[in-house]
Amino acid sequence: MDQQHLPRINAARLWQSLMDLAQIGATPKGGVCRIALTELDRQGRDLVVGWCREAGLDVRTDEVGNVFARRAGSDPDAAAVATGSHIDTQPSGGKFDGNFGVLAGLEVMRTLNDLGIVTRAPLELAFWTNEEGTRFTPVMMGSGAFAGVFGAAFIRAQRDLDGISVGEALERIGYRGEQAVGEVPGGMFAAYFEAHIEQGPVLESAGLPIGVVSGALGQQWYDVTVTGMDAHAGPTPLALRHDAMLAAARMIDEVNRIAVAEAPHGRGTVGYVQVAPNSRNVIPGRVDFSVDFRNLSQAGLDRMDAAMRAAFAQIAGRGAVAVEIRQVVKFEPCVFAPACVDSVRRAAAALGLPHMDVVSGAGHDAVYVAQRAPTGMIFVPCKDGISHNELEDALPEHIEAGANVLLQAMLEHAR
Amino acid sequence: MDQQHLPRINAARLWQSLMDLAQIGATPKGGVCRIALTELDRQGRDLVVGWCREAGLDVRTDEVGNVFARRAGSDPDAAAVATGSHIDTQPSGGKFDGNFGVLAGLEVMRTLNDLGIVTRAPLELAFWTNEEGTRFTPVMMGSGAFAGVFGAAFIRAQRDLDGISVGEALERIGYRGEQAVGEVPGGMFAAYFEAHIEQGPVLESAGLPIGVVSGALGQQWYDVTVTGMDAHAGPTPLALRHDAMLAAARMIDEVNRIAVAEAPHGRGTVGYVQVAPNSRNVIPGRVDFSVDFRNLSQAGLDRMDAAMRAAFAQIAGRGAVAVEIRQVVKFEPCVFAPACVDSVRRAAAALGLPHMDVVSGAGHDAVYVAQRAPTGMIFVPCKDGISHNELEDALPEHIEAGANVLLQAMLEHAR
Repeated sequence: MDQQHLPRINAARLWQSLMDLAQIGATPKGGVCRIALTELDRQGRDLVVGWCREAGLDVRTDEVGNVFARRAGSDPDAAAVATGSHIDTQPSGGKFDGNFGVLAGLEVMRTLNDLGIVTRAPLELAFWTNEEGTRFTPVMMGSGAFAGVFGAAFIRAQRDLDGISVGEALERIGYRGEQAVGEVPGGMFAAYFEAHIEQGPVLESAGLPIGVVSGALGQQWYDVTVTGMDAHAGPTPLALRHDAMLAAARMIDEVNRIAVAEAPHGRGTVGYVQVAPNSRNVIPGRVDFSVDFRNLSQAGLDRMDAAMRAAFAQIAGRGAVAVEIRQVVKFEPCVFAPACVDSVRRAAAALGLPHMDVVSGAGHDAVYVAQRAPTGMIFVPCKDGISHNELEDALPEHIEAGANVLLQAMLEHAR
Repeated sequence: MDQQHLPRINAARLWQSLMDLAQIGATPKGGVCRIALTELDRQGRDLVVGWCREAGLDVRTDEVGNVFARRAGSDPDAAAVATGSHIDTQPSGGKFDGNFGVLAGLEVMRTLNDLGIVTRAPLELAFWTNEEGTRFTPVMMGSGAFAGVFGAAFIRAQRDLDGISVGEALERIGYRGEQAVGEVPGGMFAAYFEAHIEQGPVLESAGLPIGVVSGALGQQWYDVTVTGMDAHAGPTPLALRHDAMLAAARMIDEVNRIAVAEAPHGRGTVGYVQVAPNSRNVIPGRVDFSVDFRNLSQAGLDRMDAAMRAAFAQIAGRGAVAVEIRQVVKFEPCVFAPACVDSVRRAAAALGLPHMDVVSGAGHDAVYVAQRAPTGMIFVPCKDGISHNELEDALPEHIEAGANVLLQAMLEHAR
């Protein structure tokens, strides 16, 4: 089909839906605070579910609050081609993170309605419970349960800081569904596509509207404690010190060096540092810090883990301090299905949209869904690479481009 | 005079006085909390002043609350030979810091009374207001005013966190004296000696009871701010980061390297570090930290300052962050009077006490007094080098040795 004759989404309608949904939990600085399973989340869910029903979709909810909205296909035996994301936000979140993927999926349905196109396979729009993990842990709770990583009972028993459980919160907002987690009418999705803002600076700095996401980095997070001995900064000669901060500083530099050695996909970040007693003329006796390692292969993560343990032990010995390393989080690296990744690349090309292959450095619902169904993702740039921030922003033409790629990719699998 | 025939202090009486004074503000863990110009400080001052009067000393107080207790000499024209320290403590302070110097001086007076020795020059015991600087700044307030570094009106106007001024606090506890600050009857001290626990590990690790203090390190303190940009740890490639913590870590390592290059007297410490937003999967956008540089010469401090500015600028450029350096504290290096230092060394030798020359890494009242009178200090070991801590401890034999050295050194100048 010629580029001019491909069906196109209604960009103005999609943008308006994004702005309308962003009113629920809108913050004074232009962001959104709509935390999972709160009253505001209920209002957001109700708005989107209402739009789905207006579009003639059949809406179901599962026992952890994941919502699915289906557009029937012509083949009663075909597995659904699905899309989705999340509508919960960070406390100082933006209008696009998650919301774009959900409303782009809705716009695909609306567009096909407008054009009177009936696909062979049914199309399904999902929005997953509590992707952000702000109020309840774990993060990506709904898609993780869907993938079978977490059991429904475990999820429903998780509690927030006020002692309210996920199960109770679902009852309160009316989103405790009947469908068993992971059950899909007609069988597991034939394919799943998720459109999302990049949340990083790569596409913007490359000047490209579309990122074809080939997979997601695996993650290993650690808590590290360095223990030395508090002492007066003045009377204690350098050679007699047990300076936990000096050793921690060398370890932090080493985290970066280890990541650089795993270019281009290695990432190493120390985001959290706590010093005790944290007084300007006392040599620190204890430093706690975090390490966040990411890489595209498990072998790469294993190399980073081993390099860190060797380097930290050497630094601790040199600095006469003790070091303890505890791994606290692990996400396996994810390689998306070539059939889906290729569809996204073909869709961008067919639409004449400049694009590049990228990997996702962050976790997404798609990474869990990929454990059960062939999956692909579409990234669009966000302003200055900023996300999880009220300043999060995206250009209408990029939002439009991403939704058109989603439409083409889904049609390729559903026709 | 033969070593066996030198006069000796009464070690049991001195120890008992230390333990008695430590009861005022005693903490459950065996430390002392007796913060300057509080009701507990009044009780401590009253106890020591009472002991001074019992010893026949003439007690005066100056307008910033410094207390002076004089034992008359035989020569009415002779300038006094003085000693002293402070009795205020840190909030989690110990029994010996400051208190040892004051009560060792009192024990010198008591011993001379016991032996019926009248010196040619009068002897004077001082205790200085607010050495610790916990409730009111600046630290070493009383001795600094005595040295003329601070004006009396400035000191009396300083306020604590509750808005109470030093002048008001002095009135409340009855220690606003009439004597003008810096005025000494009969002229400035002929010599001043201060005995103090080392507050560091050098003497203990050398196994020596006496440190002959040749001077005190100069100090230059800085506040440093590194500004980068917050970003997601996952989606932001290393090359596109502005990681304030990585740059700060390299700077902290450099602070150590700069101090090592100034061995043996250079000291470099980063005791305070604050990271923002301090979240494990966010690249830090801002880090504030302190730098504490010490050295025995101003030229050395100047080299450290220049090396830091050059290194931090280079690191900031490499890490695509901005750095701002603000100097916040400066104490000049101090070289004690050779006549006093030699007296301390001779006294230790005469008493057969193993000793070594040391420099003070910390500030002391003696460092300010040295600006007006020939000054020396005597250090004794403290357990594990620990001070400003309820665990602060010292051995009775070291306390005794230090007080005997003080007695000999004062007698050499006062006879």
